[in-house]
Amino acid sequence: MYLCDIGNSNVHFFKEGRIWAISVSEFQHFSPQEPLYFINVNASVKPWLAGKKHCVDLEPYFEFDTIYQGMGIDRVAACYTVKDGIVIDAGSAITVDIMSGGLHLGGYILPGLSATQEAYAAISPRLNVRINPNIALDALPQKTADAVSYGAIKPIIMMLSDTCKDKNIYLTGGDGKFLSRFFKHSVFDKALIFRGMQKALSQSGLVKEG
Amino acid sequence: MYLCDIGNSNVHFFKEGRIWAISVSEFQHFSPQEPLYFINVNASVKPWLAGKKHCVDLEPYFEFDTIYQGMGIDRVAACYTVKDGIVIDAGSAITVDIMSGGLHLGGYILPGLSATQEAYAAISPRLNVRINPNIALDALPQKTADAVSYGAIKPIIMMLSDTCKDKNIYLTGGDGKFLSRFFKHSVFDKALIFRGMQKALSQSGLVKEG
Repeated sequence: MYLCDIGNSNVHFFKEGRIWAISVSEFQHFSPQEPLYFINVNASVKPWLAGKKHCVDLEPYFEFDTIYQGMGIDRVAACYTVKDGIVIDAGSAITVDIMSGGLHLGGYILPGLSATQEAYAAISPRLNVRINPNIALDALPQKTADAVSYGAIKPIIMMLSDTCKDKNIYLTGGDGKFLSRFFKHSVFDKALIFRGMQKALSQSGLVKEG
Repeated sequence: MYLCDIGNSNVHFFKEGRIWAISVSEFQHFSPQEPLYFINVNASVKPWLAGKKHCVDLEPYFEFDTIYQGMGIDRVAACYTVKDGIVIDAGSAITVDIMSGGLHLGGYILPGLSATQEAYAAISPRLNVRINPNIALDALPQKTADAVSYGAIKPIIMMLSDTCKDKNIYLTGGDGKFLSRFFKHSVFDKALIFRGMQKALSQSGLVKEG
């Protein structure tokens, strides 16, 4: 049995505690030989998945309390095991969601770090610099490479600090570990989305436990 | 006589208090019949400008006190008439510079609003939404379009508030007027860069005043 989180560019697999990723185009050549429970935010993969043997969409089995309209199922899954705290999925976008007493209070979306780096590069060749994750955030930059790194990272940290205050923070995604170092009450959990999927799966009655 | 600010995509002209813009490619078909004093951050235009009649580079005439390395001449010009305060040029990038007692203390660069909108669109078709400048920044978003607008605008406002505190703020550039509405001690000056160029020109001795 696989759990499978289908994104816009990559597909993440979870099996027996192990996580790995393949590209969406590789995924479309994949024929599972055992049950594959998935969530999917990628519209282009939907027709292909519809007729696929062994593939089961977990989305209908999530019972999630929110008034947010059109929340991606990956965000729902990341929040699904968190009763109180801030859930941050720092991937190609950085989604930030606030959970309180098992209720989802809303959230927002920032461009991810690599998307931000590409945004600078598209503005001018002079701004096509590699973002330095170790840039000092308490000193004014004195050259362009630092001015870009500071401008890319500091707004994210300021926003998250403002949202999180003293609440617990649950981070996942490619840049989650990096961002976790800025926050005391934070936990980085690579498998956060899969934990949510496991919870939905066990509530669904699709598999017998034990 | 023209003043001329050559950027990466557009060229802004100033003459007798009037400001207008043409594209860089249009500019390369332009033959000035009178003196044109320019600043230029666009490397691709340099060879073309070098042999051009009537065209005079003002960059060597700026005397600017900073330890910042490689500061774009447009940023220097924007800061050149400001003794104390924060100088923000909100164009394709948002440059933020701090002046104190005529000294430049450093600065940083954020992606501009339209670059940010394009960054979201490149991440996922679901994030390809028009940024709403009137988004409420004090309420958690409850749908994706709001989550993007909030995530695009609020970090900029938080960064600028943190930098500016109670200092005077001088804004210019395409989104300068929009950003000025968030700050009490702010002035939007469309001609800020040209004022700097005028100051450099009058210090240069290139033209006789009177």
